[in-house]
Amino acid sequence: MSETFTIRRQVEFNHCDPAGIVFYPRYFEMISAVQERFFADALGMGWDRMISGTGMATPMGQIDCRFHAPSRLGDWLDLSLGVKRIGRASASFVITCTSGDERRFTCQATVIHADLAQGTSTAWPAQMRNAMTRYLIAKTPD
Amino acid sequence: MSETFTIRRQVEFNHCDPAGIVFYPRYFEMISAVQERFFADALGMGWDRMISGTGMATPMGQIDCRFHAPSRLGDWLDLSLGVKRIGRASASFVITCTSGDERRFTCQATVIHADLAQGTSTAWPAQMRNAMTRYLIAKTPD
Amino acid sequence: MSETFTIRRQVEFNHCDPAGIVFYPRYFEMISAVQERFFADALGMGWDRMISGTGMATPMGQIDCRFHAPSRLGDWLDLSLGVKRIGRASASFVITCTSGDERRFTCQATVIHADLAQGTSTAWPAQMRNAMTRYLIAKTPD
Amino acid sequence: MSETFTIRRQVEFNHCDPAGIVFYPRYFEMISAVQERFFADALGMGWDRMISGTGMATPMGQIDCRFHAPSRLGDWLDLSLGVKRIGRASASFVITCTSGDERRFTCQATVIHADLAQGTSTAWPAQMRNAMTRYLIAKTPD
Repeated sequence: MSETFTIRRQVEFNHCDPAGIVFYPRYFEMISAVQERFFADALGMGWDRMISGTGMATPMGQIDCRFHAPSRLGDWLDLSLGVKRIGRASASFVITCTSGDERRFTCQATVIHADLAQGTSTAWPAQMRNAMTRYLIAKTPD
Repeated sequence: MSETFTIRRQVEFNHCDPAGIVFYPRYFEMISAVQERFFADALGMGWDRMISGTGMATPMGQIDCRFHAPSRLGDWLDLSLGVKRIGRASASFVITCTSGDERRFTCQATVIHADLAQGTSTAWPAQMRNAMTRYLIAKTPD
Repeated sequence: MSETFTIRRQVEFNHCDPAGIVFYPRYFEMISAVQERFFADALGMGWDRMISGTGMATPMGQIDCRFHAPSRLGDWLDLSLGVKRIGRASASFVITCTSGDERRFTCQATVIHADLAQGTSTAWPAQMRNAMTRYLIAKTPD
Repeated sequence: MSETFTIRRQVEFNHCDPAGIVFYPRYFEMISAVQERFFADALGMGWDRMISGTGMATPMGQIDCRFHAPSRLGDWLDLSLGVKRIGRASASFVITCTSGDERRFTCQATVIHADLAQGTSTAWPAQMRNAMTRYLIAKTPD
């Protein structure tokens, strides 16, 4: 049985564009925020400790995003993260954003566990890998 | 023969994260900027005139991005846009970012030509469609 | 007796610069956020309703900010707003940011109640003025 | 006779708010950018080299800004920096932003030359101090 990790944000003036809707690059700051809290709170390895303590980081390898409906000032957004795949030195997340019953965007993101100085990928520590496993999205049978 | 539309940006302090590399959501602001200049300069329809004059906008429908190598403070980035597909009321762009000979990211983005008040997609005006055609990426034979 | 309006924010990766501390322009987004919540929650006039309903807005006239100590990833910040002065068509706020016992910045900001189309200042409606009065900072005797 | 250091920027969609004008926190990113180019191009000490090479940075101590007129999508902005005062370990800049003949904002900013690890201010190196001198604003007689 899998868990989902969720944060809640309200759309602010600074997220909105002259068309009165969320400017989509701001969504990527929220996507970053849900991953940031996931590493800190669910995996026990905040990015500050990761960077300054171990010289590692989790740069984005690829990200695909579908936008379903616009968001407006004051909307409450729930951003949920599930783990789709855990690789040796990478992980793929599915991040969905809803406001009430309405989906706003769906995103798949693959991050690399990388050594900042060397620029090389490095296997996840066992503890982080194990913690991530709890959030693996159950595969649906074909 | 197709044309490519290019803008050049230098990586600034405000684009960089505590790991010393461009924070990827900032890339989406640059991706927005190359599309903004493309509509204004190549298609002759700036987003200000589009929104206030015709009540239309070009919200992002989907965007897929691959990050190849990190960018650092002071790097010069060339962002190039080509048109992959022109639909009735949508268009798909391929946007590549290079610094010198090195690819930094590649992105495919599909925007919708949408009526802001109605929230419905609307066919491109003939003039915009024709202007876009010049930037169609030549198909490679299978 | 005066009230203070407060919001709480956690410093995120997207707020921090390559020196590992909050990039100060991000503070101004937080300053905007506390004013945004103040107008919506304390004065009962959200900026969305103000702009679309009445054609008014509250552009910044002047802002002075002193930075006392840097903020780092994960810090919890309390941003408090008090009203220093209510003019006919303007208002001055004092906004302070603390993390625990430590002051991070102090800011004085004057906004104008302006008609967007005409570009002219307009007297505050009585209801907003009255609501603001509750947050007037008590003057200290000389 | 004093010199002024200037950069030019065009207002982009990502700078503008739902009222259709530049969201003022974006101005502070531009203010940061003119200082960044000033240190790199006029003083010969880019912030990347300063941080990674010497462990120093120039955090903002205080900044006061007056906004004179709104800026809109597509406006060309000239941001000019002059040096008002050079302290032992600080410097005050006057930054003005104009679009054509119209002033948009005027800003006075004091940065500290600080050791990042120690958190202490440190005297400017002679070379940087000397280079800054060329940009000192001529004092007007009282």
